[in-house]
Amino acid sequence: MRLTITGADGFVGRAVVRRLRDIGTAAELLLVDRAFADPGPERRLAGDLTDPALLAAATRDCDALLHLAALPGGAAERDPAASRAINLDVPLRLIEALSDRRLVLAGSIAVFGAAPSGPVDDRTVPVPDSVYGTHKRMAELAFADAVRRSAIAGAVLRLPGIVARPPAATGFGSAFLSDVFHAAGAGQPYALPVAPDATSWLCSVRACAVNLASALLGDGAEQAAVTLPALRVRMGDLAAVLARRFPGAAITHAEDPALRRTFASYPPLTTPRAAALGFTAEPDVDALVDAVLAELSPNPRQGCPQCA
Amino acid sequence: MRLTITGADGFVGRAVVRRLRDIGTAAELLLVDRAFADPGPERRLAGDLTDPALLAAATRDCDALLHLAALPGGAAERDPAASRAINLDVPLRLIEALSDRRLVLAGSIAVFGAAPSGPVDDRTVPVPDSVYGTHKRMAELAFADAVRRSAIAGAVLRLPGIVARPPAATGFGSAFLSDVFHAAGAGQPYALPVAPDATSWLCSVRACAVNLASALLGDGAEQAAVTLPALRVRMGDLAAVLARRFPGAAITHAEDPALRRTFASYPPLTTPRAAALGFTAEPDVDALVDAVLAELSPNPRQGCPQCA
Repeated sequence: MRLTITGADGFVGRAVVRRLRDIGTAAELLLVDRAFADPGPERRLAGDLTDPALLAAATRDCDALLHLAALPGGAAERDPAASRAINLDVPLRLIEALSDRRLVLAGSIAVFGAAPSGPVDDRTVPVPDSVYGTHKRMAELAFADAVRRSAIAGAVLRLPGIVARPPAATGFGSAFLSDVFHAAGAGQPYALPVAPDATSWLCSVRACAVNLASALLGDGAEQAAVTLPALRVRMGDLAAVLARRFPGAAITHAEDPALRRTFASYPPLTTPRAAALGFTAEPDVDALVDAVLAELSPNPRQGCPQCA
Repeated sequence: MRLTITGADGFVGRAVVRRLRDIGTAAELLLVDRAFADPGPERRLAGDLTDPALLAAATRDCDALLHLAALPGGAAERDPAASRAINLDVPLRLIEALSDRRLVLAGSIAVFGAAPSGPVDDRTVPVPDSVYGTHKRMAELAFADAVRRSAIAGAVLRLPGIVARPPAATGFGSAFLSDVFHAAGAGQPYALPVAPDATSWLCSVRACAVNLASALLGDGAEQAAVTLPALRVRMGDLAAVLARRFPGAAITHAEDPALRRTFASYPPLTTPRAAALGFTAEPDVDALVDAVLAELSPNPRQGCPQCA
């Protein structure tokens, strides 16, 4: 089995590659990204997926493809044309190029818009309110139609907020949701820009990678969009757990209405369809913090080497 | 004011041009279509909008554009790639090309899918289930996002079934909804492929053209998608009214489950947003038949010249 992963050198991509190594898959991997920071045992293809020749090379010999490459939300909002090229046209071309093969697209909870007005479940029809969410929703619709026509197999998996992204990650207005882990790990004070009762849908990168690898390797029934499970985290609860783990950390709260509205006004979420497909997320804040710390450092009691 | 109309030589396009002539607009018209059957006083541009040079010529000097050109549903289902090029990529390019100017896109009730499961109103979030409906919904989402960013002005108007299309119209599985008028007008028997209790959302081409011309000329607030008003017609009621008008017509009913599901299983529809914007449709079947006959023939009592 030959698997291609796009965005493979990104934060989530690296975690998926680690997961595939950990489970010892016999699959042959082709990793695609604009550039790679380090060498590695897998075959690598560096270039831009908006280049048709590169997209053809990325898809030619694979049995299944996981598409993670994207222009993040903040950058998409600043450059809608670039978002269209990367977040819409590339997935549409992948759907066409991979006809009859397996394609897993990384979707996003951004399709629901900031601050959905009521609880979200598998029957909620998304209404996006950002460039990024709009292009993600458009790609979902095209994917669902291709599934209906039996022109593609696979799924679109809507990712919640994935923590903790590296401190240097750019283009994500949601950076505070990750930065608070790094600051706590480094024993530094951190002012969360949202109040204790603000709520976000979060999942560790480890759980996310397990879900994505499973979808890529799986041969389950074709699915249109599936909202992945996520933990709805109150920021006050997250601050309390981090303060207990890192007694030096002093986490305070401010209130930035725009960040609150976009990233921390998420209502209750239920995802029975994802559960039935075997996808999981952390069940509580302690488990989430454990999973994040385990990924950041071999010994969480020692703090986070990335943060030092 | 310079107005461009694409698909201007089509069934709906011709009706819009007639309407603009009737109201004596001072606007300068540029008509765009793949080809034109007849000459006329307006400037004409023949070619394919998927050609970037033609699209540039169509948009360069206009203040407002009405985009009617489309690949119909049946043809879209047979050739999804062509539908993507015509029904998705062209509207996306128009949104970009017309930034800050007025754009009215012809949308479609196909975005709601065949046989919506419950009554439809302005809060119903569409879930398409066809290639055509999917691309129309994707274009709606892109338009709504451009309106949100103040990158475009105008609206997407979702058209119901427009009657009576010419008998030769191809690519429309909904042809029976028009053909019954022509058969009745010619005093010929006609077997409707759906039962008397089947229901469709219909509007005369005249009312449709009035609505579209008004949207094109209007300078109302920017709108995302607006479902145009339509009359929910029971096929038995339509057959009865036509039989009364054309005593020679013998209209019977068969039942084709696929046609019933796709074109004649429409639930109750309420469109207060369209009403508030001044858009109208015929209030009852008699008015609908009147409007259709008036368009087909100068003297409805004499039958329809197109049908003879």
